[in-house]
Amino acid sequence: MKSIFYTLFLAFFSSLTISAQTDSTFIRKIYDEALNNGESYENLRYLCKEIGNRITGSAEAEMAVYWGKQVLTKYNFDTVYLQPIEVPHWERGTKEAAWVLNTSGEYFKINILALGGSVGTNGMMDAELLVLETLDELKKMSRAEVEGKVVYLGEAFNAANIRTFDSYSQCGAQRWNGPKEAQKLGAAGLVIRSLASEVDDHPHTGSFGYDDAFKKIPAAAISTADCNQIEAWSKQGQLSIKMEMDCRWYDNDTSYNVIGEMTGKTDKIISFGGHLDSWDVGEGAHDDGAGIVHSIEALRILKELGYKPEHTLRCVLFMNEENGNFGGKTYAAMAKANNENHVAALESDRGGFLPLGFDVRGTKKQVEFVQKIAKPLQKDFQLYTFKEGYSGVDIGPLRDFYPDMVQLGLSINSQEYFKYHHTAADVFEAVNQRELELGCAAMGAMIYLLDQHLK
Amino acid sequence: MKSIFYTLFLAFFSSLTISAQTDSTFIRKIYDEALNNGESYENLRYLCKEIGNRITGSAEAEMAVYWGKQVLTKYNFDTVYLQPIEVPHWERGTKEAAWVLNTSGEYFKINILALGGSVGTNGMMDAELLVLETLDELKKMSRAEVEGKVVYLGEAFNAANIRTFDSYSQCGAQRWNGPKEAQKLGAAGLVIRSLASEVDDHPHTGSFGYDDAFKKIPAAAISTADCNQIEAWSKQGQLSIKMEMDCRWYDNDTSYNVIGEMTGKTDKIISFGGHLDSWDVGEGAHDDGAGIVHSIEALRILKELGYKPEHTLRCVLFMNEENGNFGGKTYAAMAKANNENHVAALESDRGGFLPLGFDVRGTKKQVEFVQKIAKPLQKDFQLYTFKEGYSGVDIGPLRDFYPDMVQLGLSINSQEYFKYHHTAADVFEAVNQRELELGCAAMGAMIYLLDQHLK
Repeated sequence: MKSIFYTLFLAFFSSLTISAQTDSTFIRKIYDEALNNGESYENLRYLCKEIGNRITGSAEAEMAVYWGKQVLTKYNFDTVYLQPIEVPHWERGTKEAAWVLNTSGEYFKINILALGGSVGTNGMMDAELLVLETLDELKKMSRAEVEGKVVYLGEAFNAANIRTFDSYSQCGAQRWNGPKEAQKLGAAGLVIRSLASEVDDHPHTGSFGYDDAFKKIPAAAISTADCNQIEAWSKQGQLSIKMEMDCRWYDNDTSYNVIGEMTGKTDKIISFGGHLDSWDVGEGAHDDGAGIVHSIEALRILKELGYKPEHTLRCVLFMNEENGNFGGKTYAAMAKANNENHVAALESDRGGFLPLGFDVRGTKKQVEFVQKIAKPLQKDFQLYTFKEGYSGVDIGPLRDFYPDMVQLGLSINSQEYFKYHHTAADVFEAVNQRELELGCAAMGAMIYLLDQHLK
Repeated sequence: MKSIFYTLFLAFFSSLTISAQTDSTFIRKIYDEALNNGESYENLRYLCKEIGNRITGSAEAEMAVYWGKQVLTKYNFDTVYLQPIEVPHWERGTKEAAWVLNTSGEYFKINILALGGSVGTNGMMDAELLVLETLDELKKMSRAEVEGKVVYLGEAFNAANIRTFDSYSQCGAQRWNGPKEAQKLGAAGLVIRSLASEVDDHPHTGSFGYDDAFKKIPAAAISTADCNQIEAWSKQGQLSIKMEMDCRWYDNDTSYNVIGEMTGKTDKIISFGGHLDSWDVGEGAHDDGAGIVHSIEALRILKELGYKPEHTLRCVLFMNEENGNFGGKTYAAMAKANNENHVAALESDRGGFLPLGFDVRGTKKQVEFVQKIAKPLQKDFQLYTFKEGYSGVDIGPLRDFYPDMVQLGLSINSQEYFKYHHTAADVFEAVNQRELELGCAAMGAMIYLLDQHLK
């Protein structure tokens, strides 16, 4: 008995070792291609500089769809197509300015960006500024205290969090739910401290939801440097704000998810992607041009290396992540309607910085499975972390229809992400070529490992 | 028996668990202080902006010594003192220019920096440019082929290496040994492709050694963008170069290592530091202003938290790492002469980017020991890698006298390091505050862990 077990043990052990060696050899080729002959950086340059920022419904978003299809077609993948989706269409307009009147009677121009989806001010508005620190303070106030005023919510990032995404989650509610709460109490408008890790002059826009039962009010974010000034003045007395924004809503449009795939030997599908739309300032370089080129490049490399996948490997350039996620929702609904067999999905939507590993959304067993197959990445490719965590907004809805699938989010050094996120500073020059290319290789390697080992 | 073993096992297991929990709680305080009340960023700003680059022997190096002592004194450490060292004194001078004559008969101005320690050209020199790819090619040539020419060595960074330090090691010999080999063959001068990961206009200086048996020749680095141009032209025919540099050597000076310490309960010493000198361009922000403020801040935080160390914790701001390492050599020799009891040393000299862990220089047992005590850092503080590796140039000589000590080098995201290393681009603005502060916390945490667990 002992010798049989021993033999079986040895056989098992050798097969694992051989598989890890084979994986490591192939993954080294992926890294070589990404770092020696990479096309992601030039693709990102094109998307950022020749197209620019690309909010859903804009001319630039349409150009980005055209570009995406063209690139996937140029790489000669087995199937390339557009998936139509109905999308919201909001525009910032051309007027956007605000001044705070301080206790010395001076107007101080502040840097603002309307939050995405805000209504305009209908000319210049002028109101008392009710300076609060947190959303919870607002929730405790009476209508009489708030009515007719512009509410300011100033919760700052908690610098002590090592993961900046934790800070974003913690004070994000002032953006996501601040306008709703201010509506309920009859406020004239809402302004927030930008959800940002740094003190600088760039306001950070982003999405939120109105409460349809109440009158919609203008909502904007203020740069953190200006917020520090406002908070200091507010200790000296009452402030007021003049603000003009002419953002507006249009009828829904048709836009597209852009899809390219390598056909597998079975009907099982591994999807991976980022989002093609961005906010309407800067160039959407880190958010999420990086994820787009990570995903395209991962598939290009596998094809370039002559890889023949078991699963169908489907690269999806999602539209409308930023303000509605109708790309992700439609992709999931169509997958189900077409009776597709989805087993795994990966997303890159945390910037083009140094990749550190993958967060795994799934069962304990699925997390352990990923940790097992990822061993070559830990050993030879300086990826470190494979833990239970969040995957991504775009691929999220797929799990509603395929609860047994495993999802992975590319984990990236997040320290600088919220310096650029949703701002005019998120431009091509903020992305380092090597770090971007390492992200492409990490995506390609994990897609390969899932394709090889997911049965 | 079984129950005794079980009890012992439980006791052992709980003591480990309790220790890890205690460590984690204290380390969290270190991170809170670094991220909420950190002083490293302002200290780095001062060193970069109010002093600037600070090559050994310069007025700026003297100001940096004064500043270092002042800061350590302000933090009220138990002992603060200067350790005198004899240092070389080389200056770039004021003239530094070069033009390459291409095959169309046009002079093209190229960006150069004399390598540190080079002799000048004694007026304008004009010579044939012998364009080679590697040092090995040069070694195979005859005196007749090389004599009177300026040798160009163009080995580029291997982009496929994930660790950029591996690329630096691989093509570093063209800088370290290129001048020697060119001297032997009677070359008039030597120019090299900058040891750089990026293609841009910044030449990268750095040290090298002459062969004293031969005539000393001028040596310089060329920016990678200009190198690409030169290499393309050289395929069309013979090039020549005009070059002027008036760098010069002075008599040795006296300078200082700057030392501050918290006295421990035993005579055992843990040293840690970076180097106060820098090359004479840019501001020495990543190399090694970051290491200086990492080390000072680590000690400040431990003192601020009221920590009472077992070992004497000694922060050393080493002088002259860049061109001679006389700070490190003198520190080690004095330690031995004074019969000091050194058990561990840490160095930060890889920039102010995201910390990833520590490289451990020591026995297999010492590496395993560090891996064991580092578990809280892996679990709760997003540090990932604790492997056998290199520690640092400054603390290196200590090991000659204390072969049993363990040494650690702070491991840092290296992807952008060789964009800035030894260039005019290495300025304060290239350092991110959060990443710098995380490096301080990592240093503080590892010093604490060694102090607690090293018996």
